[in-house]
Amino acid sequence: MTGRASKLRPFIEPESVVFVGITRETGLGSFNAIENLLRYKYGGKVYLVNPKAEEILGMKSYPSVSALPEKVDLAVVLTSRTITPGIIRECAAKGIPAAIIMGQGFADATDALGKQLQEEIIHIARESGIRIMGPNTVGVANAFTDFSTSFMWMKMEEVPVGIVCQSGVFFGRFHDLTLLGKGIDLGNACDIDFADALEYYEDDPQVKVIVLHIEGMPNGRRFLEVARRVAQKKPIIALKAGRGERSRKAIQTHTGSMVGRDESWDAAFKQCGIIRLDDVDEIRDVVQSFICLPPLKGNRVAAASFSGAGVNITLDACERHNLRIASLSPETEKKLEDISPLWLGTGNPMDIWPSMVASEQPIGETFASGVRILLEDPNVDALFIIAGAWMEQFNPSLSQVIIKMTEGFPDKPIVCWAYETWTIDTTVKDLAEKIEKEGRSVMFSSVERAIRTLGRLAKYWDFRRRSAIPLGEMER
Amino acid sequence: MTGRASKLRPFIEPESVVFVGITRETGLGSFNAIENLLRYKYGGKVYLVNPKAEEILGMKSYPSVSALPEKVDLAVVLTSRTITPGIIRECAAKGIPAAIIMGQGFADATDALGKQLQEEIIHIARESGIRIMGPNTVGVANAFTDFSTSFMWMKMEEVPVGIVCQSGVFFGRFHDLTLLGKGIDLGNACDIDFADALEYYEDDPQVKVIVLHIEGMPNGRRFLEVARRVAQKKPIIALKAGRGERSRKAIQTHTGSMVGRDESWDAAFKQCGIIRLDDVDEIRDVVQSFICLPPLKGNRVAAASFSGAGVNITLDACERHNLRIASLSPETEKKLEDISPLWLGTGNPMDIWPSMVASEQPIGETFASGVRILLEDPNVDALFIIAGAWMEQFNPSLSQVIIKMTEGFPDKPIVCWAYETWTIDTTVKDLAEKIEKEGRSVMFSSVERAIRTLGRLAKYWDFRRRSAIPLGEMER
Repeated sequence: MTGRASKLRPFIEPESVVFVGITRETGLGSFNAIENLLRYKYGGKVYLVNPKAEEILGMKSYPSVSALPEKVDLAVVLTSRTITPGIIRECAAKGIPAAIIMGQGFADATDALGKQLQEEIIHIARESGIRIMGPNTVGVANAFTDFSTSFMWMKMEEVPVGIVCQSGVFFGRFHDLTLLGKGIDLGNACDIDFADALEYYEDDPQVKVIVLHIEGMPNGRRFLEVARRVAQKKPIIALKAGRGERSRKAIQTHTGSMVGRDESWDAAFKQCGIIRLDDVDEIRDVVQSFICLPPLKGNRVAAASFSGAGVNITLDACERHNLRIASLSPETEKKLEDISPLWLGTGNPMDIWPSMVASEQPIGETFASGVRILLEDPNVDALFIIAGAWMEQFNPSLSQVIIKMTEGFPDKPIVCWAYETWTIDTTVKDLAEKIEKEGRSVMFSSVERAIRTLGRLAKYWDFRRRSAIPLGEMER
Repeated sequence: MTGRASKLRPFIEPESVVFVGITRETGLGSFNAIENLLRYKYGGKVYLVNPKAEEILGMKSYPSVSALPEKVDLAVVLTSRTITPGIIRECAAKGIPAAIIMGQGFADATDALGKQLQEEIIHIARESGIRIMGPNTVGVANAFTDFSTSFMWMKMEEVPVGIVCQSGVFFGRFHDLTLLGKGIDLGNACDIDFADALEYYEDDPQVKVIVLHIEGMPNGRRFLEVARRVAQKKPIIALKAGRGERSRKAIQTHTGSMVGRDESWDAAFKQCGIIRLDDVDEIRDVVQSFICLPPLKGNRVAAASFSGAGVNITLDACERHNLRIASLSPETEKKLEDISPLWLGTGNPMDIWPSMVASEQPIGETFASGVRILLEDPNVDALFIIAGAWMEQFNPSLSQVIIKMTEGFPDKPIVCWAYETWTIDTTVKDLAEKIEKEGRSVMFSSVERAIRTLGRLAKYWDFRRRSAIPLGEMER
């Protein structure tokens, strides 16, 4: 843990924590964060402060922060907005170095009082040295220590992803996607900001990919400096809201942030190697790809498709996402001709199904041969496979071929779109798990998404090649 | 069945069919279409022709088409390309009105012979009157009569979707998506073409939405005439390959089609009310929405979101997809203020979570109230809900509220994005099934996709309003 990261340490890795103003209610509808902590079996010390209760969930409840028997690493403050500044003062007096303010109605409120209260909190922090996360946040989550301050229950999965966001929604699960790992919800970001969070993840060995959800920020310059440095060590992905005029206005309300012109953000992200996404849906695609795939050495793609239509859709998608269709070497062309029916033109992308049907070999063998020929070509940086999922029942199966190729060609990303699962019990989801866990490959739900993601990755690795970090350190 | 549709009838609703050149092999890897037909329990008569076999799968095999005991509705021809013209001649002589040519290596081949053979087949068709589908096709599928000529096994689900494509891949299943319904793979489209297929679906009561996958076509004018007429009766959705130069060249190879400039296609689609999609992934979103949702009466959207971040992402997406954020009436604003905490600004989109937590009422009741207030506003044409899936465990639950609102406001499309499923057994997929089957709502996997789809629908219903069809017939 570097010096830079230590600022965030009491927030994300506290050994002791107090929940101030925790509800006496428990069970469904109470949204009691303590119930979650008990269920996670968090190993640190937990104190509760609620002057109206003596005991909550079998734990002693203290009347005030000053009554606590010891100074703790972190205070999680759930009180109403008007008494919050006083609580923060008390925490600072107790020597607590870090406080998360969960409550809403500060800079995010429409009235003057909210902004005034936030200013007061900032003032206390500057004066006393206590650091503040929030207000208007669900706080932090850390699957590696079974700790979270959020009222939402989450599965503690140690995925190597660190999130920094301005909304608790990103601590949630998006359909089949587990996002974190580690999570930091900055909320209104009155003190702890994006740059601080990035520095915490910068040298964190548990985090391989960083995801940002940005509404806005007052100090863009420091953020961009830090981001440029961190992006040279690990990929940073960003969802930035506020493209249009109306959402910029709305953000002012949501987290009271400075938003800035969208074009400036685009340019800034590009300059510091941050990958900007268009849609929440993209997060899974890009994150999983950074985790599973080796770096792209260039943007020349080859494709092998069971479907001629897939070939054409792939060509369109590559053009849209700035990937080049690899020009195959004459040797590769010759080898492909040898496994193809006479009437079929060979080339890249390769329509491989006619060869599979025409060959005397088992169809899985012909498929494997075609894929191998493409991967052997030094002009090919990455391979995209479009296949029927029903090939899973053949020998070698689809997943066997893909896994074997990821082993044989560890430098070349291999990704897949599979369709059709009627004939077999294996679903595409099973197939995805197999190739993503046993191989170093990724399954996508469409051609467009596979190619779009490869385009994002190619851009990032190009940034890395052009950046100051020596090549040897590039490989993960 | 109109006169226009009758041309396609023997292809899609045959009462008797012969498979010419059917393989003697059965079981895994044989791709024997007859095995599928037996499994579907297709009710029509099936004949086989294979001079090398006497019996296949317990069915008599005839030595030739002329040896068949009767004239059938449809011949499915699986012979190699060089003998195919002779077989077609024999079918015509037998009085068979329709033939599907499955084989490849015709206009889709790189050699001159392939093109020559296809020309010969066209000549035979013109001379004899036999109609041809293909070559280079998997043929047809009809879940309503348990009939398919494809070697791929499919689940016969009677979804009200008719597909016309130039690749068998669209008969497949894309992850959880069952596309057809009815399917017509035109392949090289040497005779039966897109206009013919559209006319078959035009007045088909089993088909409510038409999906096209177009690589290219020689007779664009007739297609556009027919499409404009059909789009005034039911939505037509199109995936058109060949945006870029390379894919246009590749399509020439795949189905030997004329492609045309992409911009001309864009303009033509717009003019005849066809909805062009960007991605295979979109098909499910748009098709399901046309099936489940009432027509949009305008493009003014309201949103209720558990997450402030969701509000902002929604605003961005609406701007991108040409939807307007509805301006609420003063009465609506007043009603929203009544259920919101004092510090919270009200408006559209509505950040509803603070109200749900602050209220004395059960959270489900507050949620229902907010949603109802938005729907009651005459300035609102459609409602988008962003919710935690864990609200399913409350009373009223998320799905209960949505289903009730679709009943109470049958004229207003209601769509949803739900996140987070850790706390409950119900998955978002279960939730989607509930609101899509029991209600008239649709679940999306992201904000972007929900709003993009509403944008597509708004454009279509606008086309319908501006078209010649009287309003009364608009409602489905």
